[in-house]
Amino acid sequence: MRPKVTVEPVARLIDEFAKLPGIGPKTASRLAYFILRSPREEATALAHAILEVKERVSLCSVCFNITDVDPCLICQDEQRDRRTICVVEDPLDVLALERTGEYHGLYHVLHGAISPVDGIGPDRLRIRELVARVQAERPDEVILAMNPNIEGDATAMYIARQLLPLGVTVTRPASGLPVGGDLEYADEVTLGRALAGRRVL
Amino acid sequence: MRPKVTVEPVARLIDEFAKLPGIGPKTASRLAYFILRSPREEATALAHAILEVKERVSLCSVCFNITDVDPCLICQDEQRDRRTICVVEDPLDVLALERTGEYHGLYHVLHGAISPVDGIGPDRLRIRELVARVQAERPDEVILAMNPNIEGDATAMYIARQLLPLGVTVTRPASGLPVGGDLEYADEVTLGRALAGRRVL
Repeated sequence: MRPKVTVEPVARLIDEFAKLPGIGPKTASRLAYFILRSPREEATALAHAILEVKERVSLCSVCFNITDVDPCLICQDEQRDRRTICVVEDPLDVLALERTGEYHGLYHVLHGAISPVDGIGPDRLRIRELVARVQAERPDEVILAMNPNIEGDATAMYIARQLLPLGVTVTRPASGLPVGGDLEYADEVTLGRALAGRRVL
Repeated sequence: MRPKVTVEPVARLIDEFAKLPGIGPKTASRLAYFILRSPREEATALAHAILEVKERVSLCSVCFNITDVDPCLICQDEQRDRRTICVVEDPLDVLALERTGEYHGLYHVLHGAISPVDGIGPDRLRIRELVARVQAERPDEVILAMNPNIEGDATAMYIARQLLPLGVTVTRPASGLPVGGDLEYADEVTLGRALAGRRVL
């Protein structure tokens, strides 16, 4: 129960913050009171950054990554290897792959993974667009870099079944022990995959 | 280093979120991508709630609690006991005290505690206003409900020295074991204060 002395705009801001993922009611009030105390320009900068993201950011019409120009900078970049398309679930996955510096091809962002539990079927993802793109662009290889979990694996299997008849090489990143990890603490599925995927030195 | 493919408005939103307390760069990007995916109305509601807090919320000219009317609802409320003023560091402390349902007097919000380390001296707080208010309103009791830590104790001592000559009763809430707590896990200072403040049953 909210005490009756609550200031309405503050209560509303707490409610709005509490809708964000991982932000509980306690953190939400801490954030709201931080906004209250912070200089007006800083609070305004946050509000405008939120509005601007909704105004200026859209999806690339080629790869469906988020972008403020269309096609996006990666799809436009003539330096990149246009014979490889890496399929990921999320825009954040693109950032993660770019940080490795190991990948120089193009991307395709599905915006999710097939998950019957959450009611997400293949038609809610950008799979049809991927198939059309592979048919049109004829890349050498499509890397299915969905997350290595049940939904990601199911999505990869589903996409592979549609791409293989097109004669393209379809790959999936190796699953195994994380670098810097500890064999002792690896879960059995990861350790099992690491063993199954062992390489000759 | 931010990869060069970053979308500028998204990067800016991540930076803005990362300025909030307790929000690291990882959480900030998670929040930014949540905003990106959420419907436009929800993102706009958050942005407007932030702006509105800065527009409509100010400090009560009597007790310096946050409010959207002046004087605030508590200072206006004729039902409340006007002979007691409870001094707190923060508006959140007022909410906490109201939730107890045990306090029916007025408040005075200092907006901080004396902390030489952080460069916060007595003149940065609403102490002068408190002394003037006690002189004018002549309450029976002033409760110094600053946090039970070094800064709070120092602030309470400083204020007590100024209020006692005015002939008002100055009190401080009991320090001791939290209800539901465990003697075994209490720190020695808390346990020491609990012992020193023991009551006859």
